[in-house]
Amino acid sequence: MTISPYNQLVQLGKETQLVADAQALLGWDQEVLLPRSGVSYRAEQMAWFSGWLHNKFTAEEVGSWISAAEAEAGSPEQCANLREWRHGYDRETKLPESLVREFAETQVRAKSTWAEARSKDDFSLFAPALSRLIEICREQAERWGYEEHLYDALIDKFERGGTTGMLTDTLGSLRSDLVPVVEEAVAKPLPDVSKFRAHYPVADQEKFNAEVAASIGFDFSAGRIDTAVHPFCSGMAPFDTRLTTRYDEGDFCSSLFGVLHETGHGLYEQGLKKELRGQPVGSSASLGVHESQSRLWENHVGRSRGFWNKWLPVAARYFPNLKSVTLDEMVSYVNRTELSHIRVEADEVTYDLHILLRFEIEKDLFSGDLKVADIPGEWNSRFEKYFGLPVTKDSEGCLQDIHWSMGIFGYFPTYSLGNINAAHLAAAAVRQDPSLSQAMDNGDYSGLLTWMRTNIHEKGSLYLPSDLITEAAGTPADASALIEHLKSRYL
Amino acid sequence: MTISPYNQLVQLGKETQLVADAQALLGWDQEVLLPRSGVSYRAEQMAWFSGWLHNKFTAEEVGSWISAAEAEAGSPEQCANLREWRHGYDRETKLPESLVREFAETQVRAKSTWAEARSKDDFSLFAPALSRLIEICREQAERWGYEEHLYDALIDKFERGGTTGMLTDTLGSLRSDLVPVVEEAVAKPLPDVSKFRAHYPVADQEKFNAEVAASIGFDFSAGRIDTAVHPFCSGMAPFDTRLTTRYDEGDFCSSLFGVLHETGHGLYEQGLKKELRGQPVGSSASLGVHESQSRLWENHVGRSRGFWNKWLPVAARYFPNLKSVTLDEMVSYVNRTELSHIRVEADEVTYDLHILLRFEIEKDLFSGDLKVADIPGEWNSRFEKYFGLPVTKDSEGCLQDIHWSMGIFGYFPTYSLGNINAAHLAAAAVRQDPSLSQAMDNGDYSGLLTWMRTNIHEKGSLYLPSDLITEAAGTPADASALIEHLKSRYL
Repeated sequence: MTISPYNQLVQLGKETQLVADAQALLGWDQEVLLPRSGVSYRAEQMAWFSGWLHNKFTAEEVGSWISAAEAEAGSPEQCANLREWRHGYDRETKLPESLVREFAETQVRAKSTWAEARSKDDFSLFAPALSRLIEICREQAERWGYEEHLYDALIDKFERGGTTGMLTDTLGSLRSDLVPVVEEAVAKPLPDVSKFRAHYPVADQEKFNAEVAASIGFDFSAGRIDTAVHPFCSGMAPFDTRLTTRYDEGDFCSSLFGVLHETGHGLYEQGLKKELRGQPVGSSASLGVHESQSRLWENHVGRSRGFWNKWLPVAARYFPNLKSVTLDEMVSYVNRTELSHIRVEADEVTYDLHILLRFEIEKDLFSGDLKVADIPGEWNSRFEKYFGLPVTKDSEGCLQDIHWSMGIFGYFPTYSLGNINAAHLAAAAVRQDPSLSQAMDNGDYSGLLTWMRTNIHEKGSLYLPSDLITEAAGTPADASALIEHLKSRYL
Repeated sequence: MTISPYNQLVQLGKETQLVADAQALLGWDQEVLLPRSGVSYRAEQMAWFSGWLHNKFTAEEVGSWISAAEAEAGSPEQCANLREWRHGYDRETKLPESLVREFAETQVRAKSTWAEARSKDDFSLFAPALSRLIEICREQAERWGYEEHLYDALIDKFERGGTTGMLTDTLGSLRSDLVPVVEEAVAKPLPDVSKFRAHYPVADQEKFNAEVAASIGFDFSAGRIDTAVHPFCSGMAPFDTRLTTRYDEGDFCSSLFGVLHETGHGLYEQGLKKELRGQPVGSSASLGVHESQSRLWENHVGRSRGFWNKWLPVAARYFPNLKSVTLDEMVSYVNRTELSHIRVEADEVTYDLHILLRFEIEKDLFSGDLKVADIPGEWNSRFEKYFGLPVTKDSEGCLQDIHWSMGIFGYFPTYSLGNINAAHLAAAAVRQDPSLSQAMDNGDYSGLLTWMRTNIHEKGSLYLPSDLITEAAGTPADASALIEHLKSRYL
């Protein structure tokens, strides 16, 4: 029996996904469980998987299958798959296997070096690994090619179709609208938080978080929540989506908002069409779209009055000190706004300023205007300029984030795209179905989830990310809905 | 540069081990973490790995490398590697890839079916999967070939060189010496356990167990302890050895002895020569040898007076109710002897009776004398005959163990070999270095571990298992040391 070239590609996608999903478990395990001395061997394993996958993707027959399939008429789904397979094949074949393997191996080792540098507050320990990662990424980008900026080729890994120019415009316009909002919001006095000072045992936080996550739709028979230093979500199989969070026994909201954020990612992963796993149309569209889902549940839902109207009484059953807290106090507590050092702990208003700083620094690193050794100084002076706060240690500055140690450059800006997309989609959903507004005020998010399932999750990569948002919302994304949302909530 | 055939094999061993170790993580994860709905996809993944490894091992060039290397003179290590590579190659090439994949996939699904059948106490739910596994194993054995019994070919998977005849002799002679010891031991009155009735929080048990495991030599920078329904040890990388245990908050000894047992396995794994990983001389010799290490630390060490002389005061710091317990009472508590239903909870004296029952049933299953549907009836009637206890539910009878659901037949008898080997090695170590005896009375096991490291762990598969024991102990293993040990401790 002859298999059509298109179906050969479908089969290849299924097999490579199965193997990539095993590699994803190894990656997840490194973050959550791997014993300290196991890092080096894990690096070799990751390199093996990356090399094997590279060879599978770049085999000559794959190119012939793609060309042959492109010559035939196909359904919109088939065309979308071919669009992404072609794009991936053309990029992957430009890389030698040795570079792919070295990148994977360097990523694992650099993560562990970075963790050590961060704990010792010593950027110089991390600098050599970072330099090597930047060199590798620069070589990747040179091989992939780009029209204007080398950094474009890196952005495209995370945001299909994204460019430095497009992001500079989008984020630039976000900045100019955001800065006055930040100034006004942080000028307000902070609420009294004394009622929230209490001991919140991890075991009770776990139970409360799980109740919330399950209630908004996370399927625990096909997923789990674990503890990790860096909260993340890994959709490592069609029925296996894993979230992590971290716990502060002095503030139950720290783990809760981590879980709400990662649950947003997890709902997206669980909402992909399982029977299409291994095909682009069964995969998420981009990080900017992924982040729209996490920020939606974290901020638009989790910091809203309707949410706490429902969940404050439940929280008070787990944490008795909350019995004396009023709804107003709870809402104020989760919407405190202040300029601070750590991105992942930043409030909804000031968050994007952190991203803008990272975007600038990455652009300068890849344009050659900034040397690795100069990162701490440059970070600290720009941070003080934008935030008005001195940076006294690198763990609160340029060493705070894991991303660079993973060799992912061009990733940070997708966080701001996510914020923009989240507000844009939330506004569109309510505009298209005004009953959602009332339901959400009552803490009922089933309609919102259904809208996201239908308009975003189930579409996979049928469209390019910006087209997907336009299709879903009716208009292209811009920062206006986000600014509107922040103004109405914070000013 | 030409690589010698022998070095080709070394490289192949390294690569396949790296991949097999990734598969081991997937297997470990299935037992410890995998969400319920993830089983089916995990089965496909396991099948992929088994198929890939099979194809690597059985490539034609591998056969040529082995033949070419065999024609050259080599060191004892090289000869041992070639002995095992030849044996593995000759067996593996007799299996078609389809059977290898189906076996791996069926194993994963059957484990989950068995867990359901066990929880519902309904053997009939598990019977079809079990029948299929037996059919596959029968086909494997027929393809591998055997001299006397089809079951021989299965035993060899776990105990190189073992045969039905050899095991029938060894275990038969164990039985005849053991039965009078059991009769006398269980006739003694049970100690009063009322002082031990208390609540032992899991978190404190975890801390105590970790302190004990670290003290006897388990390296936590290269390993960890997690929770699983079925305690096991997985040495999944040179610096990544994972133990599991389970907790009973009414009896801290349940998890402790699980940890001591698995630590024994873990010390063996951590004691293998790391630079030889992927070669037989860097791998454990057999399950009968592996189990000698676990039973050594669980029983010879963990149930001894010297051990509790050191650890009772520590335990009492974690569990204050133990402050009123005397050393005599503690030692009596951990050495209670009684006939009971569950193998993994059985005491040291009656344990082998459980194995003898399973060995008989497996022999009959593969000789064709016993049908799958008749297992529960046969189990229950033999159990009542040997133990004098009726079996009222299958979860306390033929459904209690996970092994058959993993398609591992010929595995159970290695537990009794382990008991025999443990006593034989412990006696030999003390005979060769009499100072060990006094050190162990003082709770110092560093000398014992060093002896095992040198004579067992670091040897890997240099010798066949029975030769390894003879080399280490000076005489071939027989049950006499075990019987002697039981008599001196229990009668």
